[in-house]
Amino acid sequence: MKLRLGCELAYKVLAETVFIFNVEVAFLQRHLNLKDQLLFNPPLPYRTYQVPDLRNRYTQIVAPVGDLHLSYSAEVELDICRVDPAGVHEMPVKNLPLDILPYLLPSRFVPSDELATFAMREFGAFPHGHLRVEMICGWIYNNIEYRRGSSDAKTTATEVLIQRAGVCRDFAHLGISFCRALGIPARYVTCYAYGLSPSDFHAVFEAYLDGHWWLFDGTRQAALDGLVRIGIGRDAAEVAFATPFGLIEPGPIKIWIERTDGMMETGPRTTDAIRTEEDAPHAGAG
Amino acid sequence: MKLRLGCELAYKVLAETVFIFNVEVAFLQRHLNLKDQLLFNPPLPYRTYQVPDLRNRYTQIVAPVGDLHLSYSAEVELDICRVDPAGVHEMPVKNLPLDILPYLLPSRFVPSDELATFAMREFGAFPHGHLRVEMICGWIYNNIEYRRGSSDAKTTATEVLIQRAGVCRDFAHLGISFCRALGIPARYVTCYAYGLSPSDFHAVFEAYLDGHWWLFDGTRQAALDGLVRIGIGRDAAEVAFATPFGLIEPGPIKIWIERTDGMMETGPRTTDAIRTEEDAPHAGAG
Amino acid sequence: MKLRLGCELAYKVLAETVFIFNVEVAFLQRHLNLKDQLLFNPPLPYRTYQVPDLRNRYTQIVAPVGDLHLSYSAEVELDICRVDPAGVHEMPVKNLPLDILPYLLPSRFVPSDELATFAMREFGAFPHGHLRVEMICGWIYNNIEYRRGSSDAKTTATEVLIQRAGVCRDFAHLGISFCRALGIPARYVTCYAYGLSPSDFHAVFEAYLDGHWWLFDGTRQAALDGLVRIGIGRDAAEVAFATPFGLIEPGPIKIWIERTDGMMETGPRTTDAIRTEEDAPHAGAG
Amino acid sequence: MKLRLGCELAYKVLAETVFIFNVEVAFLQRHLNLKDQLLFNPPLPYRTYQVPDLRNRYTQIVAPVGDLHLSYSAEVELDICRVDPAGVHEMPVKNLPLDILPYLLPSRFVPSDELATFAMREFGAFPHGHLRVEMICGWIYNNIEYRRGSSDAKTTATEVLIQRAGVCRDFAHLGISFCRALGIPARYVTCYAYGLSPSDFHAVFEAYLDGHWWLFDGTRQAALDGLVRIGIGRDAAEVAFATPFGLIEPGPIKIWIERTDGMMETGPRTTDAIRTEEDAPHAGAG
Repeated sequence: MKLRLGCELAYKVLAETVFIFNVEVAFLQRHLNLKDQLLFNPPLPYRTYQVPDLRNRYTQIVAPVGDLHLSYSAEVELDICRVDPAGVHEMPVKNLPLDILPYLLPSRFVPSDELATFAMREFGAFPHGHLRVEMICGWIYNNIEYRRGSSDAKTTATEVLIQRAGVCRDFAHLGISFCRALGIPARYVTCYAYGLSPSDFHAVFEAYLDGHWWLFDGTRQAALDGLVRIGIGRDAAEVAFATPFGLIEPGPIKIWIERTDGMMETGPRTTDAIRTEEDAPHAGAG
Repeated sequence: MKLRLGCELAYKVLAETVFIFNVEVAFLQRHLNLKDQLLFNPPLPYRTYQVPDLRNRYTQIVAPVGDLHLSYSAEVELDICRVDPAGVHEMPVKNLPLDILPYLLPSRFVPSDELATFAMREFGAFPHGHLRVEMICGWIYNNIEYRRGSSDAKTTATEVLIQRAGVCRDFAHLGISFCRALGIPARYVTCYAYGLSPSDFHAVFEAYLDGHWWLFDGTRQAALDGLVRIGIGRDAAEVAFATPFGLIEPGPIKIWIERTDGMMETGPRTTDAIRTEEDAPHAGAG
Repeated sequence: MKLRLGCELAYKVLAETVFIFNVEVAFLQRHLNLKDQLLFNPPLPYRTYQVPDLRNRYTQIVAPVGDLHLSYSAEVELDICRVDPAGVHEMPVKNLPLDILPYLLPSRFVPSDELATFAMREFGAFPHGHLRVEMICGWIYNNIEYRRGSSDAKTTATEVLIQRAGVCRDFAHLGISFCRALGIPARYVTCYAYGLSPSDFHAVFEAYLDGHWWLFDGTRQAALDGLVRIGIGRDAAEVAFATPFGLIEPGPIKIWIERTDGMMETGPRTTDAIRTEEDAPHAGAG
Repeated sequence: MKLRLGCELAYKVLAETVFIFNVEVAFLQRHLNLKDQLLFNPPLPYRTYQVPDLRNRYTQIVAPVGDLHLSYSAEVELDICRVDPAGVHEMPVKNLPLDILPYLLPSRFVPSDELATFAMREFGAFPHGHLRVEMICGWIYNNIEYRRGSSDAKTTATEVLIQRAGVCRDFAHLGISFCRALGIPARYVTCYAYGLSPSDFHAVFEAYLDGHWWLFDGTRQAALDGLVRIGIGRDAAEVAFATPFGLIEPGPIKIWIERTDGMMETGPRTTDAIRTEEDAPHAGAG
């Protein structure tokens, strides 16, 4: 699938502000022929940083008082790895690579320790494997209402579970919580999502099964085979699209994504398991 | 300072259990002539993993039903880097290396986002630099009661601040919270602590100032120049001394540390700033 | 049903302590032929207070340093009002007496406002009436584990729902939360419970349906037709069996209850709706 | 002080909605020559209820779909009881009337049990009496920012303390929390406040000292000798100015209050202790 995508962000900077942006498409093998461009207006010097292994790309600027405008555009071809979910099994903790273990730990918005009993009681008896995580997504879809404005930047998965409402960020946090509580490593993914309506930054999650990471989305709002990854983190805290240190007033946001291969819209939601490429051999995996 | 130290842990394993231990002294340049040995009884095969950069050492075993005993002993010489604290300044966020930024983010037990206003109101007007973090430690020491049993494995820094009581883990979490809220990167440190009484695993924290990490301890229970690092993490979740997956009953714990250089006990608490060595050049620092 | 019951409480008083006790059987019309006696050792002067309408009996003493022993014993005959639950309907809020409305409001351990959406999604579509509250009790029974030590004096219904475990206090708080969230007035009841094993103070709840209060118990541990009421409150905060202001060390507690009418043990759990008598005509009910 | 006051509330009723309003001036002895009128447009039948002792006045209507407008106006003369605060002492718990004790208990938005240690450490050593509560108000005024929009209908005093911001409701909840934690009965008061700018419903609190209730206001925004009481409750849950059961869209709110005795604006904030009249002899006080 060939895609053209991008975003426009605008801010009123009221006092000198350091921004860390994480809006660029990650440098991954499955992101073929990536060409992209990040522009600031006014033009500003910037520093960039790519996280080893995860390959998140961060760009830092120091914005002076005044209007700031960011414009990002990219072209990319997605190389999707599809697998029959029936053959994707869970791994016993003893077989997990040791560098994967941090994704079993609780984090700021994913208090999986608090939700341990809840997860065991709801999902403990489900058949293990890719299907169990898919069933967790189904449970979230059926039990949590997708409602704009129902959560804010401090909302945790536990609060989402109680208030029974959230947005994509919260659906992902809750799915990650349940997975970790069940001994399945899971992590947070930000992306451009083909087919999402209205267009916006999207958040989904990955679970670690059978030695690979697999995509899941409890919101069921976008096609799992149309996601272009921006960043990976323990939870939303690590991959905010913009982290400002200073004093600003946010302006309008625009995100867009479209096919450029002349193909028609996607059909029904895929039932394949979607594997995200293995970035590097795992330490301690022997 | 030459030290001999170690620990003994015992468990009743009620069902096959995967343990991840993090009790070994980290491989650091300032840990001179480190010789150590980790033994299990019954003897068991194990896997080890060292975190890049941080150099935490994790050891994993799969323990069968029955008694399990871990015994660790080490000899090490500490190479302490002392600096006059008056010359240690805070860094503006715009000058921070980008790979340090995760230590500004909130984490499971360090909800620094919740405590932002609290920190600004209490400490915003303090003189900046090493002294400000030292004053934060003083505030914690004066306002939080050290009380065994006052917290558990799920207690966050916010709860500690409300209940006004905690143990070393909680003092560290609160100090880290305030630092992050003020724009000072901070991280959690587990260690063997010379002079701590009664002897136990200890937790302190490091703040990032002037391009280096510096040790701080709000409990004032151990000498900052007598700490032997085990692990570094965002918070306690990442560096538990034992993380069991299975079913166990914990037995007695014994930790010990003593000087082997014939020197007398430490005198008064040091007023030097104690720098922990720079492990590697920072990415994105140019 | 004729019953003999009582309790023995013991304390070490370390500094002069004011105690408010609420252990005496309430003066209700359905508590026939009540004879009881409350004794302190050492003998102490006391003040008593009976709450209007609710008829909770509070006794206050000022205990000097030393041992304190309370002994309470009572004989009472229960006049049980049984009704076919099928005929017990919910009342629209507009028809509720206005003095009942406080039992729709959230309270310390019953944050029914937080649980509003949860309750609506789980129980909104259930058939209304006595049966709905009974189904709520069934849900609690099936989803919450009764586990001693799983909660403490500060645990709220929301926490119980997350941790999926609690004791009778917590089961009652959760049932009350769901009822209030659904527009059904509900309140907390402490009692002596015939058949409870091991014997202890018990907590259940009442819901207001069809112009009367009806007993419910999500723990299913005692017979609803064998409860002798001590107190009524918004939640546990108002009807603690002992509220000490001072410095004490609690000693052993003993609660006992037995039939004195020569009848055999109760058979299967009653399926009748159990109505508690109407204490007084309601204000604003016209 | 002679006052004319009132409010206008407007709603779009989207489905039949039961409203409980609590906007009318309480029938108190110190509210001299009270004349008032509550009107609904469209005109609707209503039920009223006055809480015994507290004398809160509640009015219930059932509003059909369409626009609803409430208009309340009153004239009243305030009989203020001023006392030198130096002579107003705290009462030991053992001397408190037993019917006052509920105001020592934690409630939904006043988790005084959580804040017990905090209160003892901050205020335990202050001189006891009216002055201590006044110093608590000063601490709140200095440490909590008054900021519109910083809290919502579910915000507790603990959250206010952490976020260091709130509105009058939150200032009152925090003051009540500290008082209860220190053994001083305290309760929530809603009122019309002369001099408040911009005009709005106001919330303050009362503490029980020397056998009487006394007014306190941590916001320092209105004159304590210009408050006209609407309601008394354990906390805001009990005295919302409007409690709707149904589906509505709130419209604009207007509150007004002005002097009618030709007197000039109030001068500096009073330093007198302001006593609210004793409604009835207390039970169990002998």
